[in-house]
Amino acid sequence: MKKIINDPYAVVDETIAGIVKAYPYHLRPSRTSGRALVRADAPVKGKVAICTGGGSGHIPVFLGYVGPGLVEAVSIGNVFSSPAADDMLAATLEADGGAGVLYVFGNYGGDKMNFEMAAEMAELQGIPVRQSIANDDVASAPPAEKDRRRGIAGIFFAYKIAGAKAATMAGLDEVKATTDRAIEGTRSMGVALSPCTIPAAGKPTFTIAADEMEVGMGIHGEPGIGRGKLKPADEIAELLSEIVIEDLPYRAGDEVAVLVNGLGATPPEELYVLYNRVHDLLDDHGLKIHRAFVGEYATSMEMAGASLSLLRLDEELKMLLDAAAFSPFLPQWPA
Amino acid sequence: MKKIINDPYAVVDETIAGIVKAYPYHLRPSRTSGRALVRADAPVKGKVAICTGGGSGHIPVFLGYVGPGLVEAVSIGNVFSSPAADDMLAATLEADGGAGVLYVFGNYGGDKMNFEMAAEMAELQGIPVRQSIANDDVASAPPAEKDRRRGIAGIFFAYKIAGAKAATMAGLDEVKATTDRAIEGTRSMGVALSPCTIPAAGKPTFTIAADEMEVGMGIHGEPGIGRGKLKPADEIAELLSEIVIEDLPYRAGDEVAVLVNGLGATPPEELYVLYNRVHDLLDDHGLKIHRAFVGEYATSMEMAGASLSLLRLDEELKMLLDAAAFSPFLPQWPA
Repeated sequence: MKKIINDPYAVVDETIAGIVKAYPYHLRPSRTSGRALVRADAPVKGKVAICTGGGSGHIPVFLGYVGPGLVEAVSIGNVFSSPAADDMLAATLEADGGAGVLYVFGNYGGDKMNFEMAAEMAELQGIPVRQSIANDDVASAPPAEKDRRRGIAGIFFAYKIAGAKAATMAGLDEVKATTDRAIEGTRSMGVALSPCTIPAAGKPTFTIAADEMEVGMGIHGEPGIGRGKLKPADEIAELLSEIVIEDLPYRAGDEVAVLVNGLGATPPEELYVLYNRVHDLLDDHGLKIHRAFVGEYATSMEMAGASLSLLRLDEELKMLLDAAAFSPFLPQWPA
Repeated sequence: MKKIINDPYAVVDETIAGIVKAYPYHLRPSRTSGRALVRADAPVKGKVAICTGGGSGHIPVFLGYVGPGLVEAVSIGNVFSSPAADDMLAATLEADGGAGVLYVFGNYGGDKMNFEMAAEMAELQGIPVRQSIANDDVASAPPAEKDRRRGIAGIFFAYKIAGAKAATMAGLDEVKATTDRAIEGTRSMGVALSPCTIPAAGKPTFTIAADEMEVGMGIHGEPGIGRGKLKPADEIAELLSEIVIEDLPYRAGDEVAVLVNGLGATPPEELYVLYNRVHDLLDDHGLKIHRAFVGEYATSMEMAGASLSLLRLDEELKMLLDAAAFSPFLPQWPA
């Protein structure tokens, strides 16, 4: 294990400490949990608050999405592990501006269980909580079992839409409905070229040959739909595009947002080589690209690989996607 | 070599093509060079234009710094190779808004030679050109031979200050003087944990043992000041901070901007673990941190490692550093 760390068991707490020191104008620690961060200006009175949470090791997922036009507060678990219910409750209580809280998070068992407990505790304190659960990874279960699908990089779209909708001062059920519409219209799939190492484990999560890639691998190293020889970028683009497009399906004439996400160790140059072909393939399918995002939006530490996500847009979702938002963890939003 | 590419010799052109397709609202190809990109709204009449250029493999250096409040145009070389003089001339001619052009680039022999030729050709066409050359890497030569020092991640500060100063509609010599002041006040040093592979070469630029780090390695794998056992993050922070601080030197009471830069494969979590200690060390030295930047600002493809850069600030530099700027390659600027 070759990492710039101190004690492997202290990585998460030292990461959080570094973030709080780097961006004091932007966020602050929770007053009651060392594993929750809150936007500096939270709560915003009368606005629905967006909360998220999940395991560490995926920056900017989850805590990089805290910010104006995005998420109010986040609970933070150990590497690849769910936060505790109490941490999510702390995030919830400090985020709530009196209009209720929407949890937006990925479809993982531990997170669902803990956040449901947090929601119940918050409700007992008079805070209405709703949940929008991202399940964009088409490789993680067949369409008939969509409820079992995991959330991966496409959750970026859910955060952006939820945050922008809440900023319009819409009510809790309306923010949830709009966020769910974005989640319903999002599909992703990726390939992994190398594993990552959980610091406290000290060895890679899996092994893969020097000439192989795993298609559809999850962002914690969950097995995908097959392992094969590493293909040229154009063929990877074709493979991912075909499966993602057919799953929803996205149809000719649809307007979409596209995300080509890097898993961590893959250089930006390679993501643009991939996007270069994805763009033409979407064009060939008659899809209209409203906006493209290329970069690291959900990582797996030093894993090499990339994923493709699409979001089907309508007029409202376009407006919400384009709305101002800010986080020091994210590429800039066009002015 | 495990990369998401097609033909290894086509990586740069396909990267550029992908970028142009991803951000058509933001930049465009040069009309005369396939290896130059120009801001969509260039030229800005009456404003000094900032141009840069350099080898590929370092995104967001160099082409990610094109944008409002930053750089007008960029010339793009092969991986780790200088662009041709003609490419820089093309960038220059399309960037110039009638107030002259400032070249901001790193201190490398090939770039200096080619950009000097481009400058001479531009001058023949009536465009005044000045040059500001970043040489922040303290590990690349002793203080007495500062002119031999290479430019690394600290060039980010030069771009930001140059772009913001030009946006004030200051004259060419004044923009150069202010940029030079930022360069004079910038020092950097890094450690590398793993090599990268130039696609056309097909094998790593160097080898390093599983328990070693190279201190002061350049962003093309140039040898540093020593190789040793990989240290804990806190000790790396101490090593880099001491050398960087003493080189200028930065003195108690100085206000600084801090950049902890990831070289490519190092996860954001590790950069924050590093920053966590850097922050306290700067504080111990009596330095006042005006703003911190943590992320990938100058990469070496899939190299693992990180660098620390400091910029000494004065009132004008603080204002210019904080001024609005936009690029889809860069983390967001605080509102």
